[in-house]
Amino acid sequence: MKYKNPFFTKRKKTYLHEILRLLKINNFKKYKNISINDIKNLDQAVNSDITFYHSLKYKLLLNTTKSKYIITNTKFSNFIPKSKVPLFVENVLVSVAKVTELFYPNSLNDQFENKMLKHVNKKNFRNVTFGLNVILGENVKIGKNSTIGHNTIIESNVIIGDNCNIGSNVIIKKTIVGNNVSILDGAIIGKKGFGFFPNKSKNIKYPHIGMVIIENNVEIGCNNTIDRGSLSNTIIGANSYLDNQVHIAHNVQIGKNCIITGQVGFAGSSKIGNNVMIGGQAGISGHLKIGNNVKIGGGSGVIKNIPDNSKVMGYPAKEIKKFIMDNK
Amino acid sequence: MKYKNPFFTKRKKTYLHEILRLLKINNFKKYKNISINDIKNLDQAVNSDITFYHSLKYKLLLNTTKSKYIITNTKFSNFIPKSKVPLFVENVLVSVAKVTELFYPNSLNDQFENKMLKHVNKKNFRNVTFGLNVILGENVKIGKNSTIGHNTIIESNVIIGDNCNIGSNVIIKKTIVGNNVSILDGAIIGKKGFGFFPNKSKNIKYPHIGMVIIENNVEIGCNNTIDRGSLSNTIIGANSYLDNQVHIAHNVQIGKNCIITGQVGFAGSSKIGNNVMIGGQAGISGHLKIGNNVKIGGGSGVIKNIPDNSKVMGYPAKEIKKFIMDNK
Amino acid sequence: MKYKNPFFTKRKKTYLHEILRLLKINNFKKYKNISINDIKNLDQAVNSDITFYHSLKYKLLLNTTKSKYIITNTKFSNFIPKSKVPLFVENVLVSVAKVTELFYPNSLNDQFENKMLKHVNKKNFRNVTFGLNVILGENVKIGKNSTIGHNTIIESNVIIGDNCNIGSNVIIKKTIVGNNVSILDGAIIGKKGFGFFPNKSKNIKYPHIGMVIIENNVEIGCNNTIDRGSLSNTIIGANSYLDNQVHIAHNVQIGKNCIITGQVGFAGSSKIGNNVMIGGQAGISGHLKIGNNVKIGGGSGVIKNIPDNSKVMGYPAKEIKKFIMDNK
Repeated sequence: MKYKNPFFTKRKKTYLHEILRLLKINNFKKYKNISINDIKNLDQAVNSDITFYHSLKYKLLLNTTKSKYIITNTKFSNFIPKSKVPLFVENVLVSVAKVTELFYPNSLNDQFENKMLKHVNKKNFRNVTFGLNVILGENVKIGKNSTIGHNTIIESNVIIGDNCNIGSNVIIKKTIVGNNVSILDGAIIGKKGFGFFPNKSKNIKYPHIGMVIIENNVEIGCNNTIDRGSLSNTIIGANSYLDNQVHIAHNVQIGKNCIITGQVGFAGSSKIGNNVMIGGQAGISGHLKIGNNVKIGGGSGVIKNIPDNSKVMGYPAKEIKKFIMDNK
Repeated sequence: MKYKNPFFTKRKKTYLHEILRLLKINNFKKYKNISINDIKNLDQAVNSDITFYHSLKYKLLLNTTKSKYIITNTKFSNFIPKSKVPLFVENVLVSVAKVTELFYPNSLNDQFENKMLKHVNKKNFRNVTFGLNVILGENVKIGKNSTIGHNTIIESNVIIGDNCNIGSNVIIKKTIVGNNVSILDGAIIGKKGFGFFPNKSKNIKYPHIGMVIIENNVEIGCNNTIDRGSLSNTIIGANSYLDNQVHIAHNVQIGKNCIITGQVGFAGSSKIGNNVMIGGQAGISGHLKIGNNVKIGGGSGVIKNIPDNSKVMGYPAKEIKKFIMDNK
Repeated sequence: MKYKNPFFTKRKKTYLHEILRLLKINNFKKYKNISINDIKNLDQAVNSDITFYHSLKYKLLLNTTKSKYIITNTKFSNFIPKSKVPLFVENVLVSVAKVTELFYPNSLNDQFENKMLKHVNKKNFRNVTFGLNVILGENVKIGKNSTIGHNTIIESNVIIGDNCNIGSNVIIKKTIVGNNVSILDGAIIGKKGFGFFPNKSKNIKYPHIGMVIIENNVEIGCNNTIDRGSLSNTIIGANSYLDNQVHIAHNVQIGKNCIITGQVGFAGSSKIGNNVMIGGQAGISGHLKIGNNVKIGGGSGVIKNIPDNSKVMGYPAKEIKKFIMDNK
């Protein structure tokens, strides 16, 4: 599914020379009046976007990216195709953060949203049942036959589908929710990710302009925390069920029909296939790829990619047969 | 202790032929006008109840169950005593879910409760101190000298004893609480369990008609999640103390005088003895029996039964002496 | 940093003979009219305080403590310096709890705070932005340009610095917060620790008269639980960032510039150095000392002290090189 992100307002017009000036790259006058549309990952950028390259891991994507301007470091200069314009900076990711903030001026704001409408105008909602003390932002959309529990806070521009049951004490921001979704009590969805640049005495925060997408028929357990993405989105695939106290970091993508039991945690940017079952308290490290139909035993610590149809268990996780053998 | 469950309303009268029709079992006219009182587990069913048999694990109970009518599968037909009437279905547990819903028509409803009384009529409560914005359902009972914190939600028919301290932002439903119990801020008690039948594109939920029973002198930590039982109850035994962020799945029974430290998790239906101490972040798999006076080290993953008086540690958990030896 | 604790009111005047009578120590008339100022740990007590000694672990501190009166057990009588007056009791810690409660009469009270002002008098706060339904206790101080989210509860005497962002559904008590601190949605800060004396049928609670200190530039994640100290304070050092669902028990001290990722848990009284990074779901046992610049891998279980500059991983945690070797 493809969704337009309604949560972050991009500034009207941005020129390449403005970006170069921000990054303290000289000779920026040469690039005057070249308009740049947005900042995107290598594989998502189109012709009018700027992109970035900071790790050998993404080398293959360099050849296929549609963007012409690439923020990078001189140590990667040999890899940049001749057709591209490398913009050399010392710290690529800090530069990306700055450019992202240039495009999305309010994106670093981490405060609670203050333009809330306490008394819901029920005329705007068809057959929606609201609990007491519900707090809604502006322009929230909620589909028919949905229920919103007591004390729940839904920030501006959130979209919730039909037949959804949102519990009490829930907080939802920067999130698009499909149909027939249950979000149980105390869940916190769409907060910025735990991403920043460590820096003595005062860390540098970076903008999270992704959102959370919760597809149809999903169930989100009590006290779950699901963070929104930084540049891409955090996604919970259709018909996946999450038990209580699950933690999902930014940019994680969970496939369809997954079963995630209590207290499981996902570090950032991992991609989980379809029909994956994960036992209680298992942890999945960041930037991994877990295949389809994988079963991960309770308490496992997964620190490398897992191919389709595997059953793993242990810390670090290994084939379940080996785990049983090793622990006889 | 034996408690009557005040939370789910059973339909007035149910006949066996109605059940058979629901399960698409032929020849149901033969059983016309036989009244069935309820659906229960093998060991809890009485003469007028229907029961079910779906796993070799429960073979011994087949001989002692007082129920005559047993929902089961043809592969178990040899085990069913001659005096019983087996009702053969393809998927026993899906059938049990359907029959449970027949008896308890509203039991699948997973929405927040909407018949809440915001302004507490203090005349109904003797010496109870209420915080601000407390939300109570109908027919809630709270004993004398108890305190209920700000923003706390207590759904209909919940019973809370004397001298209890309920914190702020707490949610309690389908729960009976004894005397001198502390339930700390942010705890969520009595939500339905994480039980359902996986099914491509749309899982099948099943009714949880059990409750949570919290005995005298218990302390429940902040942000705990304690799910109610499916057919039986989730029980926290007298004088047991639970630290913060503990997760207790449906049907778990915790004994008396237990100490459960932070972030421990229990999968469904395990039975914990008395005087059990469990270190932080340990996980207990489902359907296990942990004996009395057991000590489980922090971080352990318990995947088999533990006899009385054992000390275990590790993942998987083993005798602590062995754990120390193996890790020298 | 040194802070005065504004949260617990000490009784006006306490005499040694009152303490002795409470502890059922005979001949207390001999010590009549000796005034005692407070009860403190060995290393924090001054001349006018009473202290206690209950474990060989603290033997060295016995020689340097400035207190003259030491609650202890006869089995330690040989270690007590001649210049001190040992007060022999059967159970040292239970006696300490009793004496603490004598000094701080209301310190065992675990109820929600009831003297809350719902309608914030904004005149008392300069440039503070409040969400809806904010509940403040008496004498709360909030610095300029800070924001307080919806439904958040801040109990009496809490101090919050300038430029802080407190999220929604947050609960803060017995806590002092520096400048530029973010406390994200659903966090619960300053609750009493999980400390008590196990006792058949009814455990004995003990007073927690410490507080939580959150230094400048800290970020506290969603649904975190940070308990206040018993006699000393729980401290989160400047510029440390905590991800979601982190649990910090009483008396824990986290250094500066630490990065603590999701679902990490700390048992009581451990002391973490500066610049420490801890991966997701790791657990740190109680009473440990983790050095500066330590890296602890995700999922680790740390059960012994870790020297400066180490990288460890595993359960139990060992040098990361050894962990990788052992798991090849």
